[in-house]
Amino acid sequence: MPLKIFVIMITAMIVAVPSLSFGQARSSISGLQPATKTLPERLGYPPDAKLLIVHGDDLGMAHSVDAASIKAFESGLVTSGSIMVPCPWLPEIAAYARSHPEADLGLHLTLTSEWTSYRWGPVLSKDRVASLLDKSGYLYLTETEAAAHLDVKEAEAEIRAQIERARAFGIQPTHLDSHMGTLYQSKALFEALLRVARENKLPTRMSREFFASAQFLPSLLGPTDVVIDRIISIEPNVPPESWSKFYTDAIKSIQPGVTEMIVHIAYDDEEMRAATIDHPNWGAGWRQRDFQFFTSDAFRRSLQENNVKLITWREVARLLGKSDD
Amino acid sequence: MPLKIFVIMITAMIVAVPSLSFGQARSSISGLQPATKTLPERLGYPPDAKLLIVHGDDLGMAHSVDAASIKAFESGLVTSGSIMVPCPWLPEIAAYARSHPEADLGLHLTLTSEWTSYRWGPVLSKDRVASLLDKSGYLYLTETEAAAHLDVKEAEAEIRAQIERARAFGIQPTHLDSHMGTLYQSKALFEALLRVARENKLPTRMSREFFASAQFLPSLLGPTDVVIDRIISIEPNVPPESWSKFYTDAIKSIQPGVTEMIVHIAYDDEEMRAATIDHPNWGAGWRQRDFQFFTSDAFRRSLQENNVKLITWREVARLLGKSDD
Repeated sequence: MPLKIFVIMITAMIVAVPSLSFGQARSSISGLQPATKTLPERLGYPPDAKLLIVHGDDLGMAHSVDAASIKAFESGLVTSGSIMVPCPWLPEIAAYARSHPEADLGLHLTLTSEWTSYRWGPVLSKDRVASLLDKSGYLYLTETEAAAHLDVKEAEAEIRAQIERARAFGIQPTHLDSHMGTLYQSKALFEALLRVARENKLPTRMSREFFASAQFLPSLLGPTDVVIDRIISIEPNVPPESWSKFYTDAIKSIQPGVTEMIVHIAYDDEEMRAATIDHPNWGAGWRQRDFQFFTSDAFRRSLQENNVKLITWREVARLLGKSDD
Repeated sequence: MPLKIFVIMITAMIVAVPSLSFGQARSSISGLQPATKTLPERLGYPPDAKLLIVHGDDLGMAHSVDAASIKAFESGLVTSGSIMVPCPWLPEIAAYARSHPEADLGLHLTLTSEWTSYRWGPVLSKDRVASLLDKSGYLYLTETEAAAHLDVKEAEAEIRAQIERARAFGIQPTHLDSHMGTLYQSKALFEALLRVARENKLPTRMSREFFASAQFLPSLLGPTDVVIDRIISIEPNVPPESWSKFYTDAIKSIQPGVTEMIVHIAYDDEEMRAATIDHPNWGAGWRQRDFQFFTSDAFRRSLQENNVKLITWREVARLLGKSDD
């Protein structure tokens, strides 16, 4: 599931702010970067390039997600994805990561376990992160419950453990983001995410649009942080028959700069239906529709017609001095 | 997976020992039970009744297992099953247990995580049961590795926690058994299982045939322990095309007393194929074959023709003074 709080607003906004990373504006003070250089320029593209990361969330959550996402990566139309380290299919997606070092895989840092029939706990020993667990001993069902109960130090320790565990499994993450946006629920949590991302020289999911809803955000950013321009994510108000139209319209509306399209890819199969049984939003049918659109010729044509170029988080990560490992 | 060590031998043996529980023989000393009373008699059947528990292992391991096993229970031909509490689909099978209090569900006490693409950890906090975990932080892949590394006290604490967790989820177990037979790997482990089973007034999977391979076993048994007569389980040496013949022959060979047939039920679907990807033994096709035979008219006819009556562990549990809750 995406960053509900921010993204609901963001999909309505789709503003055309000139594509400057916050970091750039700061760095111009020290003269290292001309303040007028756009994020596409910094990435080696024309200043007004329309760049798009198509990002599949929730890898490792279910075999259905892994299988459909890998197929989508192979289409070349879904460029990036992020892995949920506490989930039971981690070994499956980690094997893919090891055999596909070119794949643009980040970590979908996970502090929630949102399905009612199929659940998981933390990476750290439960005793060490008791504040992250609901009464049943799993991670909380929702990002709001998690944020209301968690101790930020325990949350930070857990996300550090998730990164360490991913590396132990041979995953070399290219970026970080937060499952269900839990780490965007408070300033303290977001500071923890930023701290961990900076230490690991990894970019994290941040859009200039966040500034409107998370007013604490600009003050937290430093010269090395990269902020993309916008995030697009479909929401439950879009009926299934309007799926293609929503995305096609969204692609038409893409402005110069870097946009991330957050998608949720899986098959509408027995496993996924059972996992999402009482949860049609971001459920099995939803994910099959995302799979179908984002592996379609219609999507490919739409990118061409609108002169939108696909990029990866790995390219963004290079701005942070991260070597391409 | 079944109790490999014992069962491989057992399937070759299928001996016709008169059906006396070990407990009975002892209790005859105190005069509470006549020494000649057979286990079927104690259960309220004719002394020479051929009684069969058809038992599906591994509930909660995967949705595919849960869905196929529930369908098999509904056929009336699979009478019993046991749940793996550490597995991620526990909430799904627990919901079934709560809505079907008549179902004969035990606990498949779990100290291993045997698939390579899909894994789980313990119920207890990892710090408290470090000896149960492999280098990747999951339960060991095999029963021999687990038994070689585990601290028996930690194993006992973990199985107690699994029982407590099952009860917290509203499961009222009718019996206990051991996933992959880990708890039968040493005398100390088996003593832990027996201790926990007795305290909970629950029968556990023990067959008189075990006595030949586990010579420590008889000396551990007390007057309240119930030992069934034999266990039948198909093994990898049976080719797929001989599946029905193996089971049909096995049913013909059933002798008076209590027999348990250990089966592994799931669908040969994407989830199960991915979980068992490098492991055809007890894999997806194997489980689909078990599902097909044990829900078939051929199986039903075979039971009738051979005068075999299906029973449950719940009936056995009543001998231990367990109320039928």
